[in-house]
Amino acid sequence: MTSADLQKPLKLGMVGGGEGAFIGAVHRIAARIDNRFSLVAGALSSNADRALRSGLALGLSEDRIYSDFKEMATKEAAREDGIDAVSIVTPNHMHAPVAKAFLEAGIHVICDKPLTAQLQEALELEQVVKNSGKLFVLTHNYTGYPMMRQAREMVQNGDLGAIRVVQAEYAQDWLTVPADDDNKQAAWRTDPKMAGAGAIGDIGTHAYNLACFVSDLKVDQLAAELSSFVGARLVDDNAHINLRFKGGARGSIWASQIAPGNENGLKLRVYGEKGGIEWSQENPNNLWYTPFGEAKRLITRSGSGASDLANRVSRTPGGHPEGYLEGFATIYTEAADAILAHENGAALPDGHHINSIEEGMAGMRFIDACQRSSKNDASWVSL
Amino acid sequence: MTSADLQKPLKLGMVGGGEGAFIGAVHRIAARIDNRFSLVAGALSSNADRALRSGLALGLSEDRIYSDFKEMATKEAAREDGIDAVSIVTPNHMHAPVAKAFLEAGIHVICDKPLTAQLQEALELEQVVKNSGKLFVLTHNYTGYPMMRQAREMVQNGDLGAIRVVQAEYAQDWLTVPADDDNKQAAWRTDPKMAGAGAIGDIGTHAYNLACFVSDLKVDQLAAELSSFVGARLVDDNAHINLRFKGGARGSIWASQIAPGNENGLKLRVYGEKGGIEWSQENPNNLWYTPFGEAKRLITRSGSGASDLANRVSRTPGGHPEGYLEGFATIYTEAADAILAHENGAALPDGHHINSIEEGMAGMRFIDACQRSSKNDASWVSL
Amino acid sequence: MTSADLQKPLKLGMVGGGEGAFIGAVHRIAARIDNRFSLVAGALSSNADRALRSGLALGLSEDRIYSDFKEMATKEAAREDGIDAVSIVTPNHMHAPVAKAFLEAGIHVICDKPLTAQLQEALELEQVVKNSGKLFVLTHNYTGYPMMRQAREMVQNGDLGAIRVVQAEYAQDWLTVPADDDNKQAAWRTDPKMAGAGAIGDIGTHAYNLACFVSDLKVDQLAAELSSFVGARLVDDNAHINLRFKGGARGSIWASQIAPGNENGLKLRVYGEKGGIEWSQENPNNLWYTPFGEAKRLITRSGSGASDLANRVSRTPGGHPEGYLEGFATIYTEAADAILAHENGAALPDGHHINSIEEGMAGMRFIDACQRSSKNDASWVSL
Amino acid sequence: MTSADLQKPLKLGMVGGGEGAFIGAVHRIAARIDNRFSLVAGALSSNADRALRSGLALGLSEDRIYSDFKEMATKEAAREDGIDAVSIVTPNHMHAPVAKAFLEAGIHVICDKPLTAQLQEALELEQVVKNSGKLFVLTHNYTGYPMMRQAREMVQNGDLGAIRVVQAEYAQDWLTVPADDDNKQAAWRTDPKMAGAGAIGDIGTHAYNLACFVSDLKVDQLAAELSSFVGARLVDDNAHINLRFKGGARGSIWASQIAPGNENGLKLRVYGEKGGIEWSQENPNNLWYTPFGEAKRLITRSGSGASDLANRVSRTPGGHPEGYLEGFATIYTEAADAILAHENGAALPDGHHINSIEEGMAGMRFIDACQRSSKNDASWVSL
Repeated sequence: MTSADLQKPLKLGMVGGGEGAFIGAVHRIAARIDNRFSLVAGALSSNADRALRSGLALGLSEDRIYSDFKEMATKEAAREDGIDAVSIVTPNHMHAPVAKAFLEAGIHVICDKPLTAQLQEALELEQVVKNSGKLFVLTHNYTGYPMMRQAREMVQNGDLGAIRVVQAEYAQDWLTVPADDDNKQAAWRTDPKMAGAGAIGDIGTHAYNLACFVSDLKVDQLAAELSSFVGARLVDDNAHINLRFKGGARGSIWASQIAPGNENGLKLRVYGEKGGIEWSQENPNNLWYTPFGEAKRLITRSGSGASDLANRVSRTPGGHPEGYLEGFATIYTEAADAILAHENGAALPDGHHINSIEEGMAGMRFIDACQRSSKNDASWVSL
Repeated sequence: MTSADLQKPLKLGMVGGGEGAFIGAVHRIAARIDNRFSLVAGALSSNADRALRSGLALGLSEDRIYSDFKEMATKEAAREDGIDAVSIVTPNHMHAPVAKAFLEAGIHVICDKPLTAQLQEALELEQVVKNSGKLFVLTHNYTGYPMMRQAREMVQNGDLGAIRVVQAEYAQDWLTVPADDDNKQAAWRTDPKMAGAGAIGDIGTHAYNLACFVSDLKVDQLAAELSSFVGARLVDDNAHINLRFKGGARGSIWASQIAPGNENGLKLRVYGEKGGIEWSQENPNNLWYTPFGEAKRLITRSGSGASDLANRVSRTPGGHPEGYLEGFATIYTEAADAILAHENGAALPDGHHINSIEEGMAGMRFIDACQRSSKNDASWVSL
Repeated sequence: MTSADLQKPLKLGMVGGGEGAFIGAVHRIAARIDNRFSLVAGALSSNADRALRSGLALGLSEDRIYSDFKEMATKEAAREDGIDAVSIVTPNHMHAPVAKAFLEAGIHVICDKPLTAQLQEALELEQVVKNSGKLFVLTHNYTGYPMMRQAREMVQNGDLGAIRVVQAEYAQDWLTVPADDDNKQAAWRTDPKMAGAGAIGDIGTHAYNLACFVSDLKVDQLAAELSSFVGARLVDDNAHINLRFKGGARGSIWASQIAPGNENGLKLRVYGEKGGIEWSQENPNNLWYTPFGEAKRLITRSGSGASDLANRVSRTPGGHPEGYLEGFATIYTEAADAILAHENGAALPDGHHINSIEEGMAGMRFIDACQRSSKNDASWVSL
Repeated sequence: MTSADLQKPLKLGMVGGGEGAFIGAVHRIAARIDNRFSLVAGALSSNADRALRSGLALGLSEDRIYSDFKEMATKEAAREDGIDAVSIVTPNHMHAPVAKAFLEAGIHVICDKPLTAQLQEALELEQVVKNSGKLFVLTHNYTGYPMMRQAREMVQNGDLGAIRVVQAEYAQDWLTVPADDDNKQAAWRTDPKMAGAGAIGDIGTHAYNLACFVSDLKVDQLAAELSSFVGARLVDDNAHINLRFKGGARGSIWASQIAPGNENGLKLRVYGEKGGIEWSQENPNNLWYTPFGEAKRLITRSGSGASDLANRVSRTPGGHPEGYLEGFATIYTEAADAILAHENGAALPDGHHINSIEEGMAGMRFIDACQRSSKNDASWVSL
């Protein structure tokens, strides 16, 4: 395989993401930004008309537009020019059956988070992934931000000393009022059968994943107070979670979808014996770092204080802001590298990070623990 | 009493606040800014030499420089030109005996927070205050900020709708490492006998007081995880506290003195059914307000969106920043108004707010509840 | 032409942008993000080896990799599947000859700014464009930012009243010290023959273009003080420019490449009789708007205060930051729309904005006026 | 003189600053904050009734309330307990006659800026000051901010290398519309006879003073475009001024009172060969410093990166914001130190900075140059 081959886009299929969907379009742009994937097939909807319309609008050949994901898995696996990987961008409860179909057909899977709607199906999927020998990539996209890579590197390098406190939060306001009936996003995301959980699943898992990624710590116990403030909402829309990390660090996650004035307020702060870092997703190019006893420093993506590790996943010079789609694109680009490495029996290149089934299971155990704790008067539970 | 009399400075004494103290100097400036008090007497130290040196440096007459606060209470009460009020700026464990001496001598008391070092002595002090018929003012200075007054007013006016979530935090970093032996501040503030508590007492009570002040809510239950991260420190230096408010709102307080990069990071966010507000003490002139579904607004002290209530406690036009000392001065100025009103049998003027023994007791019950909860695996306790 | 056809990517060629180039890669990502162009041909370098290596790395067919742009123009024009448009990403002095070759071959041109290195060649190119009947799109990418679209719309709607003051600045620091010999970017950008001008051409034209775009005003006269602070640098690296707009507004542009601490600090402020707006490129999702006498408002991309016009060029919900590449992508996407409209004899769809030869000529006249003024003691000159 | 004597407040008089005035109240608070002055006499208004009412409200003895400043100068000079210094807070056109009266009576003068309304009377006052042998302190209060002291120190220490560019601006919006008839501030500040100039005098001189103070440079030439945007306003309300400093640095000042959304937007940026600094008055506790090629640093007042020189003029720990009044208080406190040193024939203590008649003359020459330049098509004039 030559370096030119390396750059040849991989063939991508997609399940979900038809008309009216949000995250499907994000995945498609992310897959395209670094030119590492080409979308060639899709079961964009289980409704045949909608699937066709959506597929044609995306320029797919009619013979690779499906409405049945199982048929798609079988047929694509059989084609000589079949897809290398599939992106799963359905509501949560469909992640497991779709992933199973493609993994068992021998096709790598890139799957939106959280892993599944229920822990039980996640446990089953875990086995399927392990048995398949195929790659499973969970799109915890915020780990794709260069400054989060550098933050983790700084923690691992000991720049902050032993970590003591981890403060994560993810605040939104879009569910402050009951959702309109025609809001497809709100409809499934607040349906316990389809989503499995509310704020803790949709955004809490991101905060949890990022907190663990950057702090390089594991949570031992948590205590979660889940609330549902809006009308007859059946899932949580606000969560206060306290964390006990292995090794003694303490922390908290606040996840809310009913906090007016917050759009997509994912924030992370990590404090250690020697220093602290602060970061906010809404301006992801900035990482604040304070070595204790010195002036606070602003490390900017691709700027003077940025590390090689961070620069590897940047595309533009400092001051030319990269955003959500670029961070997401890094997830796809590293998935492409991982697929190529896997096909060649090689190790993942240095500096890459894949959120895989392990991170997916960690997220499901987090959700499960939050729900168990909340039902038991927010007492401490082990993960 | 004429309006000119109203403006005549009241005569103030001070206990504590001699050489090397921090908060005493703050109280003196605060008392002076609006020209409502004139410092004329003091027991600035229990060491006679130090008391004398400190008193002379402040321009006190030698006959009104004391080293024994009881003597001061007695003698000042006996003087025709005796002090109208005393400021107590000692370490916490001395608040109660000093306050008792002056109240029983018939002198109004302005006291630093928290109320006392131990709940038991607070309960006793509460009785002394009630029996004395004198004013007791606790300097929860952050309620003096104009934007906090306006925030409370907005909540009371219903601009935010029913409150759902209250997020308060108070992060510092000065105790990240063990304090030097010669740091008087650190010495008593980390001594359980003198301080009674660590972060929860020194800064947590401020966050708690402010959260209740602005949200106009009472806390029903809390769960507190107190930690002590530094060496052999005997008091908490980090606290994660979840709150259940009466009426159903939820919230949290994070108080930390070991978070590098935080100087005096008191922040408050309040979210309701109709809107949200955000505020940070380090730039206290700004209040962010988002009516749900509209663009976020920046309300500035004395600026276009500021209310009459807030403007009443401002001194300068918008853009001419007021800070910590001005907020503290408002506490003193309203104490002066309260003293004059009290002496005249009048009601406190509209728009004034005094943190009194009730707020002091609330703070002590907060500390006590945090300690009880923490000892019981951070389970929920009632206040 | 059906809606599916509309979505079929146009065939794009590129001149310049081979190994080591900066802006070529930006153009390629921008062209790709919305899937409206597919890169199929290129003369990425005039060095044949380098052109081949670069072309293969980008996945081009070997028969569509050229080292001679004239040959490329001729051959692509002759192919049935020839390119629909060419992107010119060479140093400035090559813009005119390359554009001429493709326009005369009947191929639409997308060209980086400034238009040319010298005014004279710009005047000639202007004629070529007009005679060609082909589209010419100049990539003043900052007009692609949604918040800049909304700012212009607000001005046009009269939200700010008659405009009085326009403050633009564009500060960088990368030329603070003499560039290393191996910095290709610095080499040509500070070579008067290749660049034509320094800071005023490279970044000043962006600030000028954006100031006029948003304020909807034309400049009548300017006075420019150009400086060159670094060693033997032959072009300006700092410029202070005062502006007199037609109709009486006043303004200034500060452009600098030697201001340490500035990465890509393009900022715009526009003030009128009724309100003001403020915007900074480094956080482009935020637009600050103050109706005089009211609180300042934060309008966010795709947020509650964003307009339909702005939302049309957004891809993600509020709080999911878009950046430099997305703004640039909008330029490409609207170029694709313009090409399709042109091919179909249709008008450009509502809400689109193309920087064309007119804006290119305006930029060249700006550069020329700055240089004339500066040579004459920074006196006022007409444009 | 003992250290206790040093702390005894000086006796202060005031001319101007009666009911309805703005800056008089600011001076009084500033004089009081550090307890270095006690207000004992005043000619607060030339209207006898108003003077009396204002004086009584401030607690002055009736025999030291004057309506004629000349009478006040004479009588106070004759009293054994006469004032040590007078604060002049009248409209600009009265500065010179009042200052002259007190200086000739042997009383030190603290005077608001600008020095006078007209250059001619400034030249005369300069002689009076020199002949008097008394101190003359101009309250360019922004030089009292600790971070501005540190910025100047950093420049003098060479931390920024040779200075190349100085960008100052001072934007307000309060004169965006014609002032109400009952706005006393607007009335005299827009009256050319009383104010002498508009924005350039009221706020431009502050920006100019601060730019020179921090950069430690002198201006050689300037070119000023003065505008008056509002109705029949007779003074400038917006100014674009380009600067040529001695030694080759370049810079600009933008002063505006008609920029909606700006309250008191004084900002300063200084760039040198080795680094840059940025500061904004509305959050004066923060100083941004970028050593070229390193991450930007946030130096906070009394924080980890603050210098001894800056800490000397701070009162509270980092994170306890000081503001406009504290910066102004430092001007008064250093005036007190200067008066005591003068009385004792001693030198001004290290680290002190007094804006004196020289800075006052520099400001008047700046105003004059701006007006000369503007009348001559904004061409360059020497100062």
